[in-house]
Amino acid sequence: MNNLFYVVPALGLIGLIFTIIKSRWVAAQDPGLDRMKEISKYIADGAMAFLKAEYRVMLYFVVIAGILLGIMGYSNSSSHWSIALSFVAGAFLSALAGFIGMRIATKANVRTANAARTSLKKALAVSFTGGSVMGMGVTGLAVIGLGGLFIVLLMTFAPGALSDTQEVARAIEVLTGFSLGAESIALFARVGGGIYTKAADVGADLVGKVEAGIPEDDPRNPATIADNVGDNVGDVAGMGADLFGSYVATILATMVLGHEVLGTNGVSLADGYSGFSPILLPMLIAGAGIIFSIIGTFFVTISENAGLSTAKVQAALNKGNWGAIILTAIATYFIVNWLLPKDTTMVLRGTSFTSNGVYGAILVGLGVGTLMSVITEYFTAMGKRPVKSIIRQSGTGHATNIIGGLAVGMESTMLPVIVLAAGIYGSFLCAGLYGVAIASAGMMATTAMQLAIDAFGPIADNAGGIAEMSELPGEVREKTDILDAVGNTTAATGKGFAIASAALTSLALFAAFVGIAKIDGIDIYRADVLAGLFIGAMIPFIFSAFAIRAVGEAAMAMVEEVRRQFRTIPGIMEGKGTPEYDKCVAISTNASLKKMLLPGGIALVSPLIIGFVFGPEVLGGFLAGATVSGVLMGMFQNNAGGAWDNAKKSFEKGVEINGEMHYKKSDPHKASVTGDTVGDPFKDTSGPSMNILIKLMSIVSLVIAPTITKMHSADIHKNLLQKQEDIHNLLKAEPNQDARINQFLLENADTAAMFTLHRPTLIEKRSSKEFLSKNQMGS
Amino acid sequence: MNNLFYVVPALGLIGLIFTIIKSRWVAAQDPGLDRMKEISKYIADGAMAFLKAEYRVMLYFVVIAGILLGIMGYSNSSSHWSIALSFVAGAFLSALAGFIGMRIATKANVRTANAARTSLKKALAVSFTGGSVMGMGVTGLAVIGLGGLFIVLLMTFAPGALSDTQEVARAIEVLTGFSLGAESIALFARVGGGIYTKAADVGADLVGKVEAGIPEDDPRNPATIADNVGDNVGDVAGMGADLFGSYVATILATMVLGHEVLGTNGVSLADGYSGFSPILLPMLIAGAGIIFSIIGTFFVTISENAGLSTAKVQAALNKGNWGAIILTAIATYFIVNWLLPKDTTMVLRGTSFTSNGVYGAILVGLGVGTLMSVITEYFTAMGKRPVKSIIRQSGTGHATNIIGGLAVGMESTMLPVIVLAAGIYGSFLCAGLYGVAIASAGMMATTAMQLAIDAFGPIADNAGGIAEMSELPGEVREKTDILDAVGNTTAATGKGFAIASAALTSLALFAAFVGIAKIDGIDIYRADVLAGLFIGAMIPFIFSAFAIRAVGEAAMAMVEEVRRQFRTIPGIMEGKGTPEYDKCVAISTNASLKKMLLPGGIALVSPLIIGFVFGPEVLGGFLAGATVSGVLMGMFQNNAGGAWDNAKKSFEKGVEINGEMHYKKSDPHKASVTGDTVGDPFKDTSGPSMNILIKLMSIVSLVIAPTITKMHSADIHKNLLQKQEDIHNLLKAEPNQDARINQFLLENADTAAMFTLHRPTLIEKRSSKEFLSKNQMGS
Repeated sequence: MNNLFYVVPALGLIGLIFTIIKSRWVAAQDPGLDRMKEISKYIADGAMAFLKAEYRVMLYFVVIAGILLGIMGYSNSSSHWSIALSFVAGAFLSALAGFIGMRIATKANVRTANAARTSLKKALAVSFTGGSVMGMGVTGLAVIGLGGLFIVLLMTFAPGALSDTQEVARAIEVLTGFSLGAESIALFARVGGGIYTKAADVGADLVGKVEAGIPEDDPRNPATIADNVGDNVGDVAGMGADLFGSYVATILATMVLGHEVLGTNGVSLADGYSGFSPILLPMLIAGAGIIFSIIGTFFVTISENAGLSTAKVQAALNKGNWGAIILTAIATYFIVNWLLPKDTTMVLRGTSFTSNGVYGAILVGLGVGTLMSVITEYFTAMGKRPVKSIIRQSGTGHATNIIGGLAVGMESTMLPVIVLAAGIYGSFLCAGLYGVAIASAGMMATTAMQLAIDAFGPIADNAGGIAEMSELPGEVREKTDILDAVGNTTAATGKGFAIASAALTSLALFAAFVGIAKIDGIDIYRADVLAGLFIGAMIPFIFSAFAIRAVGEAAMAMVEEVRRQFRTIPGIMEGKGTPEYDKCVAISTNASLKKMLLPGGIALVSPLIIGFVFGPEVLGGFLAGATVSGVLMGMFQNNAGGAWDNAKKSFEKGVEINGEMHYKKSDPHKASVTGDTVGDPFKDTSGPSMNILIKLMSIVSLVIAPTITKMHSADIHKNLLQKQEDIHNLLKAEPNQDARINQFLLENADTAAMFTLHRPTLIEKRSSKEFLSKNQMGS
Repeated sequence: MNNLFYVVPALGLIGLIFTIIKSRWVAAQDPGLDRMKEISKYIADGAMAFLKAEYRVMLYFVVIAGILLGIMGYSNSSSHWSIALSFVAGAFLSALAGFIGMRIATKANVRTANAARTSLKKALAVSFTGGSVMGMGVTGLAVIGLGGLFIVLLMTFAPGALSDTQEVARAIEVLTGFSLGAESIALFARVGGGIYTKAADVGADLVGKVEAGIPEDDPRNPATIADNVGDNVGDVAGMGADLFGSYVATILATMVLGHEVLGTNGVSLADGYSGFSPILLPMLIAGAGIIFSIIGTFFVTISENAGLSTAKVQAALNKGNWGAIILTAIATYFIVNWLLPKDTTMVLRGTSFTSNGVYGAILVGLGVGTLMSVITEYFTAMGKRPVKSIIRQSGTGHATNIIGGLAVGMESTMLPVIVLAAGIYGSFLCAGLYGVAIASAGMMATTAMQLAIDAFGPIADNAGGIAEMSELPGEVREKTDILDAVGNTTAATGKGFAIASAALTSLALFAAFVGIAKIDGIDIYRADVLAGLFIGAMIPFIFSAFAIRAVGEAAMAMVEEVRRQFRTIPGIMEGKGTPEYDKCVAISTNASLKKMLLPGGIALVSPLIIGFVFGPEVLGGFLAGATVSGVLMGMFQNNAGGAWDNAKKSFEKGVEINGEMHYKKSDPHKASVTGDTVGDPFKDTSGPSMNILIKLMSIVSLVIAPTITKMHSADIHKNLLQKQEDIHNLLKAEPNQDARINQFLLENADTAAMFTLHRPTLIEKRSSKEFLSKNQMGS
C-alpha cells in the first residue's frame, strides 16, 4: 500500500495533538472565585449527567442497529458482516467528539468568565481556544477514523487490488457503516440537545423574565442551570456530533464516487496509486484543511487596547476563517494537480473531466459556502432590510411580527437555493458528479475552523451566565456580551454553511446511491417514484412538527416545575433558599431523551420501509423529495429564527418605528419577544436538524442499496428493458433518425454489437416488413 | 363527427339554464329594508369597482400574452396561431365565471339577511341557491367552453381524423391555450382577491376591534364595507375563477393523455368513436357531474321547525354533497363501460388497462377526495385533538399558541400526503397514467356541488354583516351565524379537496408534458434536473412570502386610513358622521392589484425561463419540485390557518385550560386572536393560491413544450443516446445477461431490427475482439 494512505490519519493525528496541547492550556487557566467554580460545577455535572443518560439510550440503539446491519451485511455478497463494526466505530467516535467538545466547553466557560475580569483579549483567547480544541478534536477524530479504517478494510478485503475492482467496492461499502454510525448519533445528539436547550431556555424565560420579573441567568431561577447546561448539550455536544457526521459523510460520498472514476480506456486511472487518487483526494483535502485551520487559529487575536469592540472581535474571527479558506483554496490547487494524473481525461458515468475541472469544482464549493454565509448573514443581521421589516411590523402587534418573520424566512430561501442550484450545475460542469462531491468536500475542508468559531459562541454565552450568577461586576458581563453577540452572528452563518454542505453532500450520496443500486436514474415521471417524492418531501414537515412540539411541551413542564419551586421553597425569591437546580435539569434531560425518539425513529425507519417495500428507484424519489424539502425547511426555519432573534435584540438599543423610538418593555418589544420565542425551536431545534435528517436518510439508503437492489432485481431489470424500448421508440420517431442512429452506432459500437450478435433470434421472430410498417407509423 | 361530441356542451347548457332560472328566483326575493338595500349597494358597488379594475389590469396581460402565444403557435408546426384565440376564450370565460358568482352573491347576501328575519330554512334556501347559481354557472361555462371549442378545433384541424393522428394532437395542443387562459385569470383573481379580503379583514379588526373597541361589522368602522366587499372578491369571485381553472385543467390533462391511449395493436381504439372515447370520457363525466350536482341541490333543505341547529344545516349540505358523489360513482360505471370499448385492452406508454381499471381509478379519485376532506376537517375542527392542543398552548401566551399552530399545520401534511401518494400509486395500478388523470377528473366531477357549498359560506357571512350594519334584531344575526359557522367548516374541507385535486391534476399534466416534450422521463439524478427540482420547490416559498407580506403591508395602510378617519371626521364614533367607506375600498383595491403582480409574474415567468434556457427535462424537474412543495405548503398553511381560527372561535363558548375556564377577552383568548390573525393570510391568501400556482406552471409548461423541445432537440437526442448506452451497460453487467437479452430481443424485435439493419457500419468500425474484451470487464 502506498505511503500516501498513511498520510491521512497522520494529518488527523496532528489535529489531535493540537487538541491535547490546547486543552491543557485551557485547563491551566485560573477558574476564578469559589462561587464561579461552584456554578460551573453545577453546569458541568448537569451536562455530564445528560450526556451519560443520552449515551445510555444510544447504546441500546447502536447494539440493535449494529446486529441488524451485521446480518444484512452477512447475507449480501457485495457487503460484509463487519459493516457492523464499522458502524459501531463511527457511532463511538461521533459520541466521543461530542464528549470532547462538552468537556472542554464546560472548562472554558468559567475560565472565560474569569479572563473577562482582566481583559477582552484574554477572554477571547480562552473562549476561542476552547472552540478550537473542539474543532480540531472533531475533525482529527474523523480523519483518523475514516483514514485508518479505510486502510484496515483495504488490507482485509482488497490487498493490492486496483481501485475499480469489486473488492475495493466492498471495502467502501463496509466503510459506509462508519458514516451511518456517525450520522445516527449526530441526529439524536442534535435533536435531543436541541430539545433540551430550548425547553430550558423557553421555560426559564417564560416564568423567570415574564412572570417573576427577574433578569436572565438570575441564580434565583431554578431553571437557570438547566438553561446553561442546554447551551453545552445542544450548541456544543449536539453541534460537534452533527459536524462530525457531516464531515465524514461528505468525505465518504466523494470516496464512493471516486471509486467509480476511470480512465478513458475504461480501466483504472494510471495515476501511480493503483487508480486510488480520486478516492484519496477528499481525505487528503480534509487532512490538509485541519492544518490550515490550525494556522488560521493564530490569526484570531485582538490587541490589548482594542477596547470593547464587537467589530474587532468579529474581524479577528473573520481573519482566521478567511485565512483558512484562502490557504485551502491555494493548497488544493497543488494537491489536486500533484495527486491526480496530469493531462489525463478521467471519466465518471459518461462524463469526462480533467484535474483542472476537479480544482474548478472545489472553487465552486468554496464559493457556494461563502455566498451562503453572506446571504444568511444578510437575512438575519441587525440593521439590514429583513430584520428592520420585522421590527416595523412589531409596531402593530404580535401577529404582524409573526407574519413578518415567517415572510422573511420564506423569502430567505430564494437566493440560497439559486446559489445552490448554480453550484450543483457548475460543479457538475467542472467534473461531473465527482465535481459535485468534491465541491462539497472542498467546502467542508475548513470545518475545523468553522467549528472553532461556532463553538466559541456558546462558551462565551455560558461565561456570561456564570458571571451573572456569580454576581461579578457589570464590566465582566459587558465583555462576555460582546463575545456572545459575535457568537450569535457566527451561529447564523454557520447554519447557512451547514445546510449548503448538507445539500451538496446529499446530492453526492444520492449519486453514489444510484451507482450502488445499479439503476439508470430516478425517473420522477413514474407514478411510484413520484409518490415517493411526495412522501419524502413530507418527512421534514412532520419531523419539524414533532421537534417544535417537543420543545413546546417540555417548556410547559419546565414552567410548572419552576412555578412549583417559587411557591414551595421558602425564601427563594430573597436569595436565601436554594433552588433545586437538579430537578429542572432532570426535566430537560428526560423530556429531550423521550421526545427525540419519535423524530429520530422516523428519519431512520422511513427510508428502510420505502426501500425494502418499493425498491431503489422509489427510494431515490423519496430521498430527492426529502432533500429538497429539508433544505428549504431548514433555511426557512433557521433564518426566520435568526431574524426574529435579532429583531428582538435591536430593541435593547432602541428602534424607530414610524418616527417614534421604542425600547425594551414597550409594546413592540413584547411583540418581538413573541417572535423570538417562536424562533427559538425553529433555529435551534428543528432547523439545524434538517441537514442531519437529509444526510442520515441518504446514508441509510446507501447502506441498504446492495440489499434492496438484490431483492428488487427482477423489477429493476424489467424497468430497464421498458426504458430501453421507450427510448428506442422516441429515437425512431425523431426526424433524420437514420443519420443519427448511424452516428450513434459509430460512437457506441459495442451496444450495436450486442444486438447484431443476436440477429438470428430476431429474424425468426418478425419479418422486416412488419418492422418497417410499424416504423413508419410514428409514435 | 359523432353526435356524442355535442352531448358535452349540451350538458353544460343544462347547467346554465339552471343557473338562469335560479338566479331569477334569487333576484325575485325581497331585499328587505331600505337600510339593508343601501348597505348591500355599497358592497355590490365596491365589489364591482374592484372587479372592473382587476379585469382592466388583466386585459393588458391577456392581450400581451395572447400575442406572444400566437407568435409561438405560428412558429411551431405542432401548434397553431389560433392558440391565442383559445387562450382569450379561456381567460374570458374564467373572468365571466367570477363575475357571475359575484353578481349573484351580492344579490343573495342581502336577501339572505332578509330571509333570516323569517326563518333559518328560508335563509338557507336563499344563500345556498346563490351558491348553486355560482356552482352550476362556473361548471356550465367550463363544459360548454371546452366541449364547444374542442368541436370547433377538430372541425378545423382534423375533420374525420382518427384520434391518434398528428392533426388531433394539434387540435388538443391548441386547446391547452384555453386552460392556460382560464388558469392565469384564476391565479390573479385568487391572489388579488385574497390580498384584498385579508387586508380589509385584518385592517378592520386591528383598528376596530382592538384599538377602538367596537364590534365586528360595526357601521362606524370605515373599513367594514371593504371587509364585506372582500368576502365577495376573494371568497366568491376568486374561488369561482380558481375552480373554473382547476376544472378545465383536470379535464384537459385527461384529454391529452386520452389522445395517447391506443389499442394493443398500436393503432386507434376500435371504440366506434374513431378512438376518441378516452378523450371524450372526462368531458362526459364532467357534464354528467353537473346534472348530478343539480339533483344534489334538491336534498339541501331543512324543515321549518328545525330550530337553530348548526348540525341540521351541516347535515343538509352533507346530504346534497353525498348525493351528488354517490350518483356520480354509480353513473360513471355505466358511462365508462358504455363509452370505452368492452373487454378491450388499452395501452398508454407501455401500461395496459381495461375499462374496469378506468372505473377503478375513478373510484380511487373519489376516495382520495373524500378522505382529504375528512382529514382536513379533523385537523381544523373544534373539539378535536389538534385544535384543542392549540387552545392549551394559548394558556402560556402568544408564542406558544403560534408554535402550537405551526406544529399542527406541519403535522397535518402527513396523512393527506400518504393518502395522495397511495392515490397516485393506486390509480396508476388501475389504469396507468390515464388512471391518474381520470381519478382526478372523477374527483372533480361534483365540482358544481362543491362550489355551491363553498360559495354559500361567504354569502351567509355577508348576510350577517348586513344584518349587523342595518342594526337588525339579534335573532337575525343568530341565524346567519349558524350558516356562517357551517360555511367555515365547508371552506376548510373544500380547501383539502382542492389541493388534492390539484396534485393529481398536476401529475396528469406532468405526464402529458413528458409525452408532448418527447422525452423519456424526468431523471432527477441528472445534476441539472436536480437543480431544477430545487428551484421549483423554492417557488411556493417565495410566492407565499410575497403573498403574506402583501397582506401585512396592505393591512397596515388600512389601519392608518381608519385611524385618520376616526381622527378627522367629526361625530364618527357617535354614529353621526358618515365614514368614507370608499376610501378604504380604494386602498384594498389598489394594494391588491399592485401586489398581485409580483407573485403572479413569478408563477408565469419562471417556467418560461427554465424551459427555454434549460430545456424540457430540467423544466420537468422544476415542475415536480414546485408541485411537491406547493402541495405541502398549501396543506400546511390552510390547515394551520383553519386550526388557529377555530381555536379562537372555541373561546366564544369558553374553554378549559388546566382546570380553569377562559372566555373571550381573557389572556389566552388574546393569544388565540394572534394565532387567528397570523392564520388569515395563510388560509385565505397564500394557502389556497398554491393549487393554482402548481397547475398554472404545469399548463404553461405544457403549452411551451413543443417549442422548447424543438429548441433543445439536439440535447434531448444526445441524452437519449447516452441513456441508451447507460442502460445497455447496466444490462450487460447483470448476471444471466445473455438469457435476458435474448428474451428481450424476442419481445422487442423491432428495436433489435433497427440495430441489425445498421450492422455493416459497425463492423467497419470495431473488431469483435475489441468489443468482447470490453464486454467482459464489467461496469
